[in-house]
Amino acid sequence: MNGIILYQPQKIAFGTQVVLQLPDDCRQAGYRRILLLAALPLLDTANRLAASFDAETQIIEYRFGEPTVDYFDGLLNIAGEFQPDCVIGIGGGSVLDTAKLLAALCDSRQNVREIFGKNFLKGRNCGLICIPTTSGTGSEVSPNAILLDESSMEKKGVISPYLIPDVCYIDPDLMVGLPARITAETAMDALSHCIEAYTNKYSHPVIDNYALAGIRLIADNLEIAYHDGQNIDARAALALGSMYGGLCLGPVNTAAVHALSYGLGGKYHISHGLANAILLPEVMKFNLPASPDKYREIALAFGAASAGEGIEKIKALSAACGIPQKLSEIGISRSDVETLADLAMKVTRLLVNNPREVTKEDAIDIFMKLVVNNS
Amino acid sequence: MNGIILYQPQKIAFGTQVVLQLPDDCRQAGYRRILLLAALPLLDTANRLAASFDAETQIIEYRFGEPTVDYFDGLLNIAGEFQPDCVIGIGGGSVLDTAKLLAALCDSRQNVREIFGKNFLKGRNCGLICIPTTSGTGSEVSPNAILLDESSMEKKGVISPYLIPDVCYIDPDLMVGLPARITAETAMDALSHCIEAYTNKYSHPVIDNYALAGIRLIADNLEIAYHDGQNIDARAALALGSMYGGLCLGPVNTAAVHALSYGLGGKYHISHGLANAILLPEVMKFNLPASPDKYREIALAFGAASAGEGIEKIKALSAACGIPQKLSEIGISRSDVETLADLAMKVTRLLVNNPREVTKEDAIDIFMKLVVNNS
Repeated sequence: MNGIILYQPQKIAFGTQVVLQLPDDCRQAGYRRILLLAALPLLDTANRLAASFDAETQIIEYRFGEPTVDYFDGLLNIAGEFQPDCVIGIGGGSVLDTAKLLAALCDSRQNVREIFGKNFLKGRNCGLICIPTTSGTGSEVSPNAILLDESSMEKKGVISPYLIPDVCYIDPDLMVGLPARITAETAMDALSHCIEAYTNKYSHPVIDNYALAGIRLIADNLEIAYHDGQNIDARAALALGSMYGGLCLGPVNTAAVHALSYGLGGKYHISHGLANAILLPEVMKFNLPASPDKYREIALAFGAASAGEGIEKIKALSAACGIPQKLSEIGISRSDVETLADLAMKVTRLLVNNPREVTKEDAIDIFMKLVVNNS
Repeated sequence: MNGIILYQPQKIAFGTQVVLQLPDDCRQAGYRRILLLAALPLLDTANRLAASFDAETQIIEYRFGEPTVDYFDGLLNIAGEFQPDCVIGIGGGSVLDTAKLLAALCDSRQNVREIFGKNFLKGRNCGLICIPTTSGTGSEVSPNAILLDESSMEKKGVISPYLIPDVCYIDPDLMVGLPARITAETAMDALSHCIEAYTNKYSHPVIDNYALAGIRLIADNLEIAYHDGQNIDARAALALGSMYGGLCLGPVNTAAVHALSYGLGGKYHISHGLANAILLPEVMKFNLPASPDKYREIALAFGAASAGEGIEKIKALSAACGIPQKLSEIGISRSDVETLADLAMKVTRLLVNNPREVTKEDAIDIFMKLVVNNS
């Protein structure tokens, strides 16, 4: 068995109302200056929590989509002036990724542009707590943070163990208000984390356990949560599935789905979950010959008898949750394919993980299947 | 799904030779004064590692069996004088448990006698790194440390998230020299952690994943490692199984096997793993009616068709690894049973976890089956 290094928050609190423990935990940790970055729909929750803090608290409303380098720099200025000893992020993946980078850089001489890539971040002195309110990113347990560099239209990742939060609170109560569309897109993102880790060229039995657990939870619960957002058991299951997906990211990470989706996010501003959701089945078909046994296991989790049928079940689940099945349905056309393939080929750090080599021609083939009307 | 709080070391390094990363990691963490507590057979390894430290280092040879309160106090005096900023334990469960308590108390006003029980420890300032050299205790990832209080002949536990190491290195290379008998006893201990968590009254799906993974690894690899200690794959599998068992301890913990074994350790000085190994099948038979589905899953992991057959397979595995099947084979007789049952009934914190209530009469029945010659 190959070696592996597992990083995760020293404390993961999971369950309804666990977020109520936050003020006590902050008191016990002795934090004096807390910067709370909150997604707009979570502002009330953030204010209620902050009212119980024994610390000087500044709340920043996160009013943006997926974060850009420029937007991040603006927030970093605010954080630098406030000098927090703890940054708390409460929101979806964009908010959490931003909070993680703020905690790492608010008292650092390093600039975010210097730390793109793996292990360039030199440390983190500030406390870091993440509270996810979507079930997709897994950012609350992962060493990853992604920004969009608008100058090159590239999504760029910062990967460092210092970006793993100290504590995270995964509270399904915070997710019941999530719109059905975002529930579906983010869950498909989590599913793609699990599937891309499980079928990864560098997969590992320890991470396979997480990945399969995540796949099963999402397979069994996404449609329920999509149709009934108030179903707390389904919300909890998706939250856990997403956490498992996040635990896959550090040691194994994703592969071609994510590589191919980067251009869709970077240049065409398609949401990360949606881009992955559309790409996932087509990339799975491409990868199947390289990892048939694992694809059969995935199929079993979806109640399918064969690997191919498993992929069809995933497509059907995605369609049942209102996700478009073609990129052409969301404004991408044949004329974009060359650019998308070029952007994908730049994401070598993920492409090397793919169980089957992806050439530019392969990328073009996959994109073409998603922009023309054959199925 | 019920809520749960997961604690674990922020970094778990698993694999052959991962221990070689220790000096670099200590340098990066900036430790200046390292206290290294090493089991006697690991002294050479400890010395080699210490030679690469950029820190003042004191090595203490751990020359004792399972630690007593008095022995611990002696070590604490040494630690208090040295004033380490990091304690490293390298050895089996006794060494790691001791190292964990040294790190927590070396600069504390609390006394070890004040912190027996759950969550009485107020904090830990000193770094803590654990390097297991047996595959049984799971102490390297757990919040538990056990001492023998000789005044009352009771084994007493300190349970606190502050006892979870910051980092652990699980390196199967360090385990190849472990004698076959200790390999078997410690692995049966790890197996009992997994089984007692999986069938626990307070079991949880997240921990069930760890427990089943551990059960499968131990089922498939113990006999191989017992007969061929050099088999690094089997050693790695057992090390991982033991880690999974340790991850079960914080959130769910053990039950009647461990409660009944405490008197065997405390009063009769029978090693922890051996006591658990002998008790496990008999307690499983007692518990089976309370958790038939989970016992069937365990049986499947051992290639058995029914829950009852699964228990027989575990007995057979234990016997094949040279473990006595009766307490009478290791000097316990009918006249000890009353005392053992009394001591067991004191361990209420574990008995409450058992899937089936254990009365004193039940405990006597179980012990009696293990001291007379019916099988």
